[in-house]
Amino acid sequence: MAAKKYLVEFIGTFFLVLTVGMTVINPDSGVIAPLAIGSALMIMVYAGGHVSGGHYNPAVTLAVWLRGRCPQADVLPYLGSQFAGGIVAAMTVLLLKGDPTVVPQDLEIFPALVAEVIGTFALAYVVLNVATARSTAGNSYFGLAIGFTVATMAFALGGVSGGAFNPAVALGITVMHLAKTANLWIYLVANFAGGALAAAAFRFINPEDK
Amino acid sequence: MAAKKYLVEFIGTFFLVLTVGMTVINPDSGVIAPLAIGSALMIMVYAGGHVSGGHYNPAVTLAVWLRGRCPQADVLPYLGSQFAGGIVAAMTVLLLKGDPTVVPQDLEIFPALVAEVIGTFALAYVVLNVATARSTAGNSYFGLAIGFTVATMAFALGGVSGGAFNPAVALGITVMHLAKTANLWIYLVANFAGGALAAAAFRFINPEDK
Amino acid sequence: MAAKKYLVEFIGTFFLVLTVGMTVINPDSGVIAPLAIGSALMIMVYAGGHVSGGHYNPAVTLAVWLRGRCPQADVLPYLGSQFAGGIVAAMTVLLLKGDPTVVPQDLEIFPALVAEVIGTFALAYVVLNVATARSTAGNSYFGLAIGFTVATMAFALGGVSGGAFNPAVALGITVMHLAKTANLWIYLVANFAGGALAAAAFRFINPEDK
Amino acid sequence: MAAKKYLVEFIGTFFLVLTVGMTVINPDSGVIAPLAIGSALMIMVYAGGHVSGGHYNPAVTLAVWLRGRCPQADVLPYLGSQFAGGIVAAMTVLLLKGDPTVVPQDLEIFPALVAEVIGTFALAYVVLNVATARSTAGNSYFGLAIGFTVATMAFALGGVSGGAFNPAVALGITVMHLAKTANLWIYLVANFAGGALAAAAFRFINPEDK
Repeated sequence: MAAKKYLVEFIGTFFLVLTVGMTVINPDSGVIAPLAIGSALMIMVYAGGHVSGGHYNPAVTLAVWLRGRCPQADVLPYLGSQFAGGIVAAMTVLLLKGDPTVVPQDLEIFPALVAEVIGTFALAYVVLNVATARSTAGNSYFGLAIGFTVATMAFALGGVSGGAFNPAVALGITVMHLAKTANLWIYLVANFAGGALAAAAFRFINPEDK
Repeated sequence: MAAKKYLVEFIGTFFLVLTVGMTVINPDSGVIAPLAIGSALMIMVYAGGHVSGGHYNPAVTLAVWLRGRCPQADVLPYLGSQFAGGIVAAMTVLLLKGDPTVVPQDLEIFPALVAEVIGTFALAYVVLNVATARSTAGNSYFGLAIGFTVATMAFALGGVSGGAFNPAVALGITVMHLAKTANLWIYLVANFAGGALAAAAFRFINPEDK
Repeated sequence: MAAKKYLVEFIGTFFLVLTVGMTVINPDSGVIAPLAIGSALMIMVYAGGHVSGGHYNPAVTLAVWLRGRCPQADVLPYLGSQFAGGIVAAMTVLLLKGDPTVVPQDLEIFPALVAEVIGTFALAYVVLNVATARSTAGNSYFGLAIGFTVATMAFALGGVSGGAFNPAVALGITVMHLAKTANLWIYLVANFAGGALAAAAFRFINPEDK
Repeated sequence: MAAKKYLVEFIGTFFLVLTVGMTVINPDSGVIAPLAIGSALMIMVYAGGHVSGGHYNPAVTLAVWLRGRCPQADVLPYLGSQFAGGIVAAMTVLLLKGDPTVVPQDLEIFPALVAEVIGTFALAYVVLNVATARSTAGNSYFGLAIGFTVATMAFALGGVSGGAFNPAVALGITVMHLAKTANLWIYLVANFAGGALAAAAFRFINPEDK
């Protein structure tokens, strides 16, 4: 029964985007937003990884599929569940907080593209190595590594691109008016590119791990 | 001998509510309170999990019982130990700090109910998956995942509902005058509802894991 | 050869007290000091646990000895190594920073005693359960749980007692003039009492684990 | 095929130095920089450890070689990959941020040398014990311990020496004008000395582990 996997992807992405919205709509979040967002991903990866793999991110699903660990029939339903989770989370945030008064960040296109490619590459590279490589199987650190990759990249690159590294997050922050609709393509292009690059790097680094 | 399990539940809830009280009664706690509270839960789950399961939360005990991993005879003694731990912790905080001058948060009922249901759902969903599922047995991350769920949800939702996600914490903050007695029912209703929903979700997602 | 164990206890306590001194002598440390101190303990427990048990704390050595997992011949050399590590760290801090201008906290004796007993109890209770209990053997979380117990208790109780929970730390902060010599007895009495209480609680909770 | 190991060392050092640059070039980073930098090292150690050992630091490579766990033929290529990763990261930071306006820290030579020796000793001591010792093999905490050693030492000693503890980081911050070229030798000398000392300590503490 595949529905249980899609529900897990929906729930995990819901909590990830809910945490993004609730912590970013907050004048002096400082250290809080990246830490809370990374932690939200970590807990959901630990909770749902044994059922769905715990992607919660279309760019990660792309990378895992290219690496050969996501059945082709699951790719589109996973993406659908993730985008749905992001949208429902965004509507929940608007319900709880009202329309935010945070002004969306102005992005410079080229640096934002570079930052989103780099951050998504890091995320998918870590996911593939800690959650799909044969030589790390059975470890207890996969969620910690994956969650803190998002926290680290948000600390490092959030000021340049907003730090989505995830098309479902990008869609969610656009629905919440935390990002401009005109910039959504930047995230979509850069995130999928970053995921694909990570899959290529993984295959080069782990040639025997098919 | 069941008394040792009840003592462990008492000790764990005591340290959780003690940390809540001591860090919230503090003008500029900022990032500190959610981090310290999540960490208090994490350490006590790691210390006591092997004896009692490490619930420290009546809503978690409800969820674990509905999922079939808490003997019925333990349910009421667990709740009693947890509420007792919360009350003794509250009295210890008052002893150490004097009556706090923090003004209890005003809650809007509907958003607070929604936030407490969502946060408690996340907590019980994570607990059931990382600490009771057959396919995650023997892992070393259960305490990290559980503790940081409370930290994450407190970061995300604390501003809406106060962020208890736990009837024993709700009772403790009421005794310490950090929450209004008139709002106690919000936590009790929402937390038990969130725990029950998580048990239902777990059973749908893990149908073969009885 | 026992010397290697004593050297490990010296090194671990040195880095713990060094981190205490360097982060507390800092006007706006905020969240930094408790987090850094807990992290210092965590890393040294992970690095040295396999050689010496990773106590770095005379009150923990007392508790582990009472629980029956520290050879009697090691107790005094462990305490000597720990106090020596604390003193050398304090002198290193004075070398690097000069005499600090931080004014030592004024303590009220009774609350400070209560806070130090509670915090040291938590630390030794966690140590005994995660690092010496038969049913948690082989786990990967022992250092995380132990280190973050000190961080949590420092967040919760540091404002009341200074948050040593460790006679070697107490001696170190006295040498660095971060605590008053007249208050040293408070830490010594309360920390050893907290450790002994934790050993009694552990034996009640784990009666079959001799 | 050794190239995959060198690529992993390049990628890991790139993300470490990228995070250093992006978080330090930021007026009020406060707790963020040390936490993000330690976390960057943690995630890359978890991602790449199974391929290259996850050094990302010439002083660590020296220590692991002296301890007998790095083939001699890999030493120079590892150092080359690490320095190259640091330089490319520095250029990426300059591309994303423009030339920083942060004024390089003035260092007092003797305290800076002491601080860098101490911090690098801690890092290499932790690496050797958690990632190469026979009695800790198969653990899940090695990345957590290694990453948080850098965070802890940066909290404790960053104010004295800048807190590189890594010649590739030192080169990177010099290229980014966050450190003075005239001070580069301090890091090189002290970091390699700290790594060598840690190897000696490890061999004394683990005499049977060849």
